[in-house]
Amino acid sequence: MSVARWIGVDWGTTHLRAAVIGAEGEVLADLSSGAGMGQLSPETFEPALLQLIEPFLGDHQRPTPVIACGMVGSRQGWREAPYRSVPCAPVDPVALVSAPVTDPRLTVHIVPGLSQTAPADVMRGEETQIAGLLAARPNWDGVLCLPGTHTKWVQVSAGEVVSFRTFMTGELFALLGAHSVLRHGIASAGWQEEAFAAAVTETLARPERLAADLFGLRAAGLLHGLDGETARARLSGLLIGAELAAARPYWLGQDVLVIGAEEVSGAYRAALALQGVTAGTVPGRDAVLAGLAIVAAGFLKGSTV
Amino acid sequence: MSVARWIGVDWGTTHLRAAVIGAEGEVLADLSSGAGMGQLSPETFEPALLQLIEPFLGDHQRPTPVIACGMVGSRQGWREAPYRSVPCAPVDPVALVSAPVTDPRLTVHIVPGLSQTAPADVMRGEETQIAGLLAARPNWDGVLCLPGTHTKWVQVSAGEVVSFRTFMTGELFALLGAHSVLRHGIASAGWQEEAFAAAVTETLARPERLAADLFGLRAAGLLHGLDGETARARLSGLLIGAELAAARPYWLGQDVLVIGAEEVSGAYRAALALQGVTAGTVPGRDAVLAGLAIVAAGFLKGSTV
Repeated sequence: MSVARWIGVDWGTTHLRAAVIGAEGEVLADLSSGAGMGQLSPETFEPALLQLIEPFLGDHQRPTPVIACGMVGSRQGWREAPYRSVPCAPVDPVALVSAPVTDPRLTVHIVPGLSQTAPADVMRGEETQIAGLLAARPNWDGVLCLPGTHTKWVQVSAGEVVSFRTFMTGELFALLGAHSVLRHGIASAGWQEEAFAAAVTETLARPERLAADLFGLRAAGLLHGLDGETARARLSGLLIGAELAAARPYWLGQDVLVIGAEEVSGAYRAALALQGVTAGTVPGRDAVLAGLAIVAAGFLKGSTV
Repeated sequence: MSVARWIGVDWGTTHLRAAVIGAEGEVLADLSSGAGMGQLSPETFEPALLQLIEPFLGDHQRPTPVIACGMVGSRQGWREAPYRSVPCAPVDPVALVSAPVTDPRLTVHIVPGLSQTAPADVMRGEETQIAGLLAARPNWDGVLCLPGTHTKWVQVSAGEVVSFRTFMTGELFALLGAHSVLRHGIASAGWQEEAFAAAVTETLARPERLAADLFGLRAAGLLHGLDGETARARLSGLLIGAELAAARPYWLGQDVLVIGAEEVSGAYRAALALQGVTAGTVPGRDAVLAGLAIVAAGFLKGSTV
């Protein structure tokens, strides 16, 4: 079994994912579990991490550095890593916050999230993806869309995050589909491209109708037999359309890149294409790994190991 | 113990409420339980009802008629009562649908809800409240707002429901406050009038910002120490403001009456007052009882008992 040079961890509310990196920068292992921050208390972070990475640790004389980003650094996380305030570079290797560990074979260093004073906003994890993107495209200026539970729209210029705005679109989609009256008529999977497109166009033009259009999904199921897959695509389209209406200053006439998982990135790309915006895509996992590598490189250079 | 002349039942998703009416139209008892439709199957509706009303039933030679409105008549209810289509009078005593009973001491008659073809929409229960209002004010024309889990805006003219629109505002408020990331910063009670008013004005002017303003509550809690009561009032204001933006054609320059429980009616009245609309209020319980009485009077006149 190889020993890790360092380990990069993406630790969100519902997931824990670790990339074990070897001496030459190669990925020795890509590990994941469902031990997200949401189900952990400060003292259970270390065992949850060790369960995944223990086979790759060196001995206590050369502890393996773990670089972690995401909700692990929140107030409810392992150790709070205070936000850095925009405008600023997405990451700063000297601003890492160390988490307390009992096992001498590892050290843990958390990447701080970013905050914005007005309008009040925060991110944790996305800053590392942004750093990863800028590592691959050093002079890129433009707008990033990072879809997810809390979708971020981010303006990047001259290597810095200038401003950003968070939308609860993904969380609303999940709550409405699983816990509201709409759950009776929304399939858990499936898609209908035209229904999605029509719904995007509708709320983009008349975003104020969202709360009524949502109940309309239920009524259309009862009265007109709207099927679950079409309803699912339409729910997604209504929410993304309303988001695009609010995020218009971000994407209108801009160079847009979507960073995220393929399914949800595809929905955003399709919605933007309807507005005449051709957006590129960067896989979210690639971006976070590249960002952790940037932080690790700075950390390892500065460390005395 | 007195015997009921008839019993009026308001049976929603989460509640069951029965008014026992005597020979002179007086209320003998006002009973309620948590046995809402959501936790019942077709065969458990009768026992749930008997548990409340059995002491007031006559014998099998003079069975007591029960008039019921609300979700009890939905597809997941005791017996489906097909919607009546608007425009139409809110209730029609000869359109009642009988539910199957095993106890010979009662008969059960369900008030159908209303449907609208385009835009697709449905109501169950509110039609009875509207009938109750019109019983008290026979020539009233105008717009009704019935706030609740699924708030209804209803245009009434010449004794008929002309059109209506449903907003999921109440359900969104409950889901976001209890199940989303906002739950960390939203108090379960408490109010802050100015924060409510500012939020109403914000989303009424810029409804498309809702999904971003929602996450802003979380960020303001983390960064600026926004307290839970203010956050609660602000969440309510953001949602009601967005609803008012969409319902503008209903209330602008109209005679508006709010039918509902006092707390939520007060919030809607306050929001409307900010727009220069002085809305009256009718307690929801009074309206539903009056509506059930109208239906019962027609039913008893037509029955052979």
